[in-house]
Amino acid sequence: MAHLMEDEVFLAYSTYATIVILKMLLMAPMTAYFRITRGAFVNEEDVAGKSEEEKKKMLRLNPDVERVRRCHLNDLENIVPFVVVGLLYALTGPDLSSALLHFRVFAASRICHTIAYVGALPQPSRGLSCIVGWVVTSCMAYRVLSVTLHL
Amino acid sequence: MAHLMEDEVFLAYSTYATIVILKMLLMAPMTAYFRITRGAFVNEEDVAGKSEEEKKKMLRLNPDVERVRRCHLNDLENIVPFVVVGLLYALTGPDLSSALLHFRVFAASRICHTIAYVGALPQPSRGLSCIVGWVVTSCMAYRVLSVTLHL
Amino acid sequence: MAHLMEDEVFLAYSTYATIVILKMLLMAPMTAYFRITRGAFVNEEDVAGKSEEEKKKMLRLNPDVERVRRCHLNDLENIVPFVVVGLLYALTGPDLSSALLHFRVFAASRICHTIAYVGALPQPSRGLSCIVGWVVTSCMAYRVLSVTLHL
Repeated sequence: MAHLMEDEVFLAYSTYATIVILKMLLMAPMTAYFRITRGAFVNEEDVAGKSEEEKKKMLRLNPDVERVRRCHLNDLENIVPFVVVGLLYALTGPDLSSALLHFRVFAASRICHTIAYVGALPQPSRGLSCIVGWVVTSCMAYRVLSVTLHL
Repeated sequence: MAHLMEDEVFLAYSTYATIVILKMLLMAPMTAYFRITRGAFVNEEDVAGKSEEEKKKMLRLNPDVERVRRCHLNDLENIVPFVVVGLLYALTGPDLSSALLHFRVFAASRICHTIAYVGALPQPSRGLSCIVGWVVTSCMAYRVLSVTLHL
Repeated sequence: MAHLMEDEVFLAYSTYATIVILKMLLMAPMTAYFRITRGAFVNEEDVAGKSEEEKKKMLRLNPDVERVRRCHLNDLENIVPFVVVGLLYALTGPDLSSALLHFRVFAASRICHTIAYVGALPQPSRGLSCIVGWVVTSCMAYRVLSVTLHL
């Protein structure tokens, strides 16, 4: 058990995987914040005790809420592959410096992506940060396949 | 290989991770059940062989189907982080009793969340169960970071 | 560290997990391709510099884009459980031939699913390929639980 946690690359992986997962977890309270401040809900039970007219007004889509939700879904689509491929990549025994480079660039790209998405910054800030993270995961996947290929 | 599976904390992790993943997998047949009983589909090819009028009626959103789908997405957003952070947490060598407490509370919170969401129970049942699971994952992430921090 | 990567079942798992994750990653450029060729975007900043009328036309849902996005979400719902359960399954020490059977059938089912979904092939091609992958993951989960059960 302790073996894995004595490996420096695996420690680095654990740190960065936890950081990007925490970043993703923060999207949930952010969605809740926008839902409450914008008064935009989806479930009948969330607006119980209001008058019929108020209910109708509160059960609608709000562009800010939808934006945060798209950002959250994009996180799922990109961070989950990173976490899985990163684990296998860390087990292939790469150089620590090379592994750190991959992990740091990915974490930075996702933080930039969230700022660009939620802040609605002009393109190509969001597109570029998304592509950078995507390329990092693909590079790690290439290394995993080249080490383990066993069809 | 066998090393990991001889560790009691890792065995506990494997059990609970599999249970919550199975719970998430069950959302797929539940969605299919609601789609079929409510006659609400999204793809043209799913309603092939029906008359034009029937097609139009079957290709629409249904509130029950959308509810199950939102619950499924919420599972993805919460169970996947738990599974990833839980794996790293199990590798940091926590006490068995402490680990079991985290895993059991999380599994219970997600089962309550699904019942509250699909059953449309009055709030704050759904909100609370979601928050409990979120806090458990965050606690485990804190422990992982405090053990592995290696930026 | 090297222990895991010397195990043939774990090597097989790494290969197939990476393949299905790469398949899922490819849905992102596919969505981008359909968004650009169909001229269907969701974010204001993606259509900056266009006239008001053009903007309105480009900020709409397109059936082809939505189809690819549903396929991507279905991947998340099915490939992520496979990757998690598959890791634990590989650690339970199954026969190599049995493990390879599970991994190959799953990978094939997801590739068929994507072709059937994006190509809008007649049912039950999509439904069957989705169910096959679902059953493979459930079988592996059953084995994990029967080996590790530790409530």
